[in-house]
Amino acid sequence: MINTKLIYLDNNATTKVDEKVLEVMMPYFTQYYGNPSSIYEFGGKNSKAIKEAREQIKEFFGANSAKEIFFTASGSESANMAIRGILTSDKSRNHLITTKVEHPCVLNLHKQLEKEGYRISYIGVNSAGELNLDELYNAIDEKTALVSCMYANNETGTINPVEEIADKVKSIDSKIKVFVDAVQAAGKIKLDVKNTQIDMMGVSGHKFHAPKGIGALYVKSSVLITPLIIGGHQENGKRAGTENVPFIIGMAKAAELAQSSLNYESTEVKRLRDKLENGLLSKIYNARLNSCAHKRVPNTTNIGFEFVEGELILLNMNDYGICASSGSACTSGSLDPSHVLKAMGVPFTALHGSIRFSLSRFTTEEEIDYTLEKMPLIMEKLTKISPFQKELKELKARKGII
Amino acid sequence: MINTKLIYLDNNATTKVDEKVLEVMMPYFTQYYGNPSSIYEFGGKNSKAIKEAREQIKEFFGANSAKEIFFTASGSESANMAIRGILTSDKSRNHLITTKVEHPCVLNLHKQLEKEGYRISYIGVNSAGELNLDELYNAIDEKTALVSCMYANNETGTINPVEEIADKVKSIDSKIKVFVDAVQAAGKIKLDVKNTQIDMMGVSGHKFHAPKGIGALYVKSSVLITPLIIGGHQENGKRAGTENVPFIIGMAKAAELAQSSLNYESTEVKRLRDKLENGLLSKIYNARLNSCAHKRVPNTTNIGFEFVEGELILLNMNDYGICASSGSACTSGSLDPSHVLKAMGVPFTALHGSIRFSLSRFTTEEEIDYTLEKMPLIMEKLTKISPFQKELKELKARKGII
Repeated sequence: MINTKLIYLDNNATTKVDEKVLEVMMPYFTQYYGNPSSIYEFGGKNSKAIKEAREQIKEFFGANSAKEIFFTASGSESANMAIRGILTSDKSRNHLITTKVEHPCVLNLHKQLEKEGYRISYIGVNSAGELNLDELYNAIDEKTALVSCMYANNETGTINPVEEIADKVKSIDSKIKVFVDAVQAAGKIKLDVKNTQIDMMGVSGHKFHAPKGIGALYVKSSVLITPLIIGGHQENGKRAGTENVPFIIGMAKAAELAQSSLNYESTEVKRLRDKLENGLLSKIYNARLNSCAHKRVPNTTNIGFEFVEGELILLNMNDYGICASSGSACTSGSLDPSHVLKAMGVPFTALHGSIRFSLSRFTTEEEIDYTLEKMPLIMEKLTKISPFQKELKELKARKGII
Repeated sequence: MINTKLIYLDNNATTKVDEKVLEVMMPYFTQYYGNPSSIYEFGGKNSKAIKEAREQIKEFFGANSAKEIFFTASGSESANMAIRGILTSDKSRNHLITTKVEHPCVLNLHKQLEKEGYRISYIGVNSAGELNLDELYNAIDEKTALVSCMYANNETGTINPVEEIADKVKSIDSKIKVFVDAVQAAGKIKLDVKNTQIDMMGVSGHKFHAPKGIGALYVKSSVLITPLIIGGHQENGKRAGTENVPFIIGMAKAAELAQSSLNYESTEVKRLRDKLENGLLSKIYNARLNSCAHKRVPNTTNIGFEFVEGELILLNMNDYGICASSGSACTSGSLDPSHVLKAMGVPFTALHGSIRFSLSRFTTEEEIDYTLEKMPLIMEKLTKISPFQKELKELKARKGII
């Protein structure tokens, strides 16, 4: 990096652990390190701490009971546990419905289930990233076991009407289960699962300022799932393995902090996101907004920079210490363009140069101003070396720029 | 507790995080918090740190290549990933062999697999907890897919000849895979997997002074497994979910420290364990050694206190601040006596009063002396209120005590 500043605008990939979260975790490494399953006080103390954390996470989900909350090690594990767990408990149905824009932990699991003999319907989206709801409801048949739909998309921030979807799906066939991957919604918008017909919902701690390596799964008390990890009695027999005590306690604190910041997210974080988005679109002639969905999480914008290469943009941003991403972190490493943007029909010319900026409550106005200052410089440089000079000239002409 | 001292003799349940482990983890929570999958330097730095950690864990297993190491969230996940992973990759064989004294993560998984249609042979042990090897080899048939055998038993510390078992199994049928749960061996004795025919081996960080919530699985490069958690490309596509960067780095440090302490374990920790064991057996007339196996890990002893109740012993020990356990932490909460001691044929009179003491490199001579001072007082009190006065009197007579 030229710059030693760090402008972290990739909070949908992962977040900084909040200092307050770290603080509550610390005593559980070297001081209260007992096994929560132990009968002596020293271990039992941790079992009480986990119980309190479970109550806090229950509140975070807006669930009815702490018994509906299971701790996992990631959002991916939550999704695998929910989807595999519901399928093995009822083998009479072999049809699954999901969307083309899910996170790989849902999408790739469905591709694997397809290989194992399940029929899968993958539901499309419009150009704003909004789900084709009619297509979803029409896909339901008498063999449908599960509908899996993400709450908010990781790349565009588009919010799906998951409560409405659950209602409609249940009205068609009440035996169909509904799983919602809420990894990108948690901490950004309010979860309120008890007032919905959603059966299962997963979240990941590191997306809301808890550490990487902890997640949670909500399973409605009336829903039976079989465990993914079998062994000891932990998590009410649904997820074996000694509890990650510090991270469970940390995630509960992070959930508490996130809940109390929801108003800040929807006002101040949104204001900064909008400032960034509008600034980039007005200052950079080859910028286009990839998702103009009516409902979006307040921290995310996805901008397509036409006729330039995403990786090149990111490396140039890196030189200025600005972190953002093309596609999701979980699909990076591959050169394929984003499956989400492809499903939205983002034109080829912008697909490869699309950048996701995702803010957090720690993002400052100065950071946004700095980014708005540097991005036009980067684009000026990159458009100059783009092999698409003719197309860029045409774009300029269309926009009335001389 | 009456006493504010904490005498922690339950290191097979979990261990204290080493301060040096905590130290190397700390920067990864709030300073280097980037997603290792990100392409910018800030994330890529973590990807490099994970690479180094994987090399360290490779050394710890004594593996040939870091590519054979997969990070998981627990020993239970490692076992489930290995066993499920090997079965789904070759469906033509439906017979599994394991032992009656495995940890619940292996034993209960086999019970579940039995429900799913697999045939399982559960191999017994002798009164010292040593495996009946002939029974194991004779159980092999043309449909045998996998032999799963723990390296060291969590309750008794008995070491199984896993290398010899792997050799013999492969000589009978080279297509049979061998999984070794090394959770209780790692950090206590040297692992050297590359010089064996073992295909897969699992460990858990929190048993050797890393935090709870991190584990590793060794899979020989020639062995193909399917993932348990499907999603992103992490762990070479074998285990999805954003990497738990701090814990991975912490476990690598813990492995390094454990490796350099192996000599101390086999000399000083063993000396203290032997002092405790011999002291308890000589000072307490109703004490018997539950496992006198020739080969045992150096930190563990399991003592049966005849005609008294285990939970009562533990609660009285708790009053003195001494932590130990009856059975394994992962089976606690149930009132059933230990499945391990039952398989060994420990008499009913001692089964319910059996206590496992497990030391660590942090255990001091003072702690052992204190325990040797208090345990006789506890036993004096508890034998007085035992309903088995006649039997205790007979036992005294047999031992020549007036």
